[in-house]
Amino acid sequence: MGVEERRQQLIGVALDLFGRRSPDDVSIDEIASAAGISRPLVYHYFPGKLSLYEAALQRASDDLAERFIEPQEGPLGARLLRVMRRYFDFVDEHGPGFSALMRGGPAVGSTRTNALVDGVRQAAYLQIVAHLRVDRPPARLELVVRSWISLAEATALIWLDGRRIPRGELEVQLVHDFAALAAVSAAYDPETATLLRRALAEEPSQGPFSDLAERLIALAT
Amino acid sequence: MGVEERRQQLIGVALDLFGRRSPDDVSIDEIASAAGISRPLVYHYFPGKLSLYEAALQRASDDLAERFIEPQEGPLGARLLRVMRRYFDFVDEHGPGFSALMRGGPAVGSTRTNALVDGVRQAAYLQIVAHLRVDRPPARLELVVRSWISLAEATALIWLDGRRIPRGELEVQLVHDFAALAAVSAAYDPETATLLRRALAEEPSQGPFSDLAERLIALAT
Repeated sequence: MGVEERRQQLIGVALDLFGRRSPDDVSIDEIASAAGISRPLVYHYFPGKLSLYEAALQRASDDLAERFIEPQEGPLGARLLRVMRRYFDFVDEHGPGFSALMRGGPAVGSTRTNALVDGVRQAAYLQIVAHLRVDRPPARLELVVRSWISLAEATALIWLDGRRIPRGELEVQLVHDFAALAAVSAAYDPETATLLRRALAEEPSQGPFSDLAERLIALAT
Repeated sequence: MGVEERRQQLIGVALDLFGRRSPDDVSIDEIASAAGISRPLVYHYFPGKLSLYEAALQRASDDLAERFIEPQEGPLGARLLRVMRRYFDFVDEHGPGFSALMRGGPAVGSTRTNALVDGVRQAAYLQIVAHLRVDRPPARLELVVRSWISLAEATALIWLDGRRIPRGELEVQLVHDFAALAAVSAAYDPETATLLRRALAEEPSQGPFSDLAERLIALAT
């Protein structure tokens, strides 16, 4: 194998192990063994576990950011639902590694890992804003989108801790949470209300947003 | 000054400085100078900056956890609003230190600091659940409360980044966000709906929850 090919193989092996056990519990010996090479040879490609971890995180971050890319066609609720399905696919696949990273821990918290996490959040933010067709989001709309991304992270972490609620239910719930957070903001801010009405103008009468609105009204009355 | 008195003074001085600039940018020299003692004397009380940082974080965590304590009297919406006001008082007071901690950074991310942050989240969770008068919260209600606490953190962090929205507005918004997230969960889960109806049974017709319900209905129709 060439240098770059071997590096990519080791990253893949590490990501696979980090998806089954926390990175803190995975040793270089295990990674070497799973890759079928010697421990010193791993160090030939990566000076230490942190550099291999950071390279793995870089690949995972690129992968996750890509899952937020969704064609700007059809109803917004259906688009968000597809994004949430891909998001939970990722979380499912990388469970222990995702938890360890987001909860912080000895192997993480470096300036570089934080920058990668922030990069994914920013990519997700820009994607969602593009779907809302707003050029310069006002502060309140920016807050809705950014805080919803945090809510999706928190929901995924809580789900990973025991998987007590079916993930399909949480994917739909997060789409509704987006509508609910946007509606709270819109209820008090006319500018957000106008932007939200425009974004939801193409929602079908049988889509997740109208379904939620009906259920909320039923609950409130 | 006695040893404990001097330690407490240094913690207070450090917290004050961390409330104005990120802990990473505050040197032991500055802390010594602000406390009116020599740099070697600081090291006599704390072996290094990390131990002083952890002691400061311990005090701040105790302080923040206490702000979630609220008598179980009167409407739930009004109680949550008082908690959110105290939460934003804390965030306002400790701005740069709070941001640095929650966003991760070189000075943070240790097992001990993560445990302190988790401790505050758990204390907040138990307080909120007590207000809902639920002995053993089912998984979906636990998710609502825990993910709302994450939402409050995210909202506070976004607010600190430029303070573009008046904090009073965000305090009210977070109370509404709680109702909205609970309502989304309740709309699809009869058990959560029953618990929510009971918790909101004592809400006044002029309280924040009914106000929100009216505005949401107006927006949806």
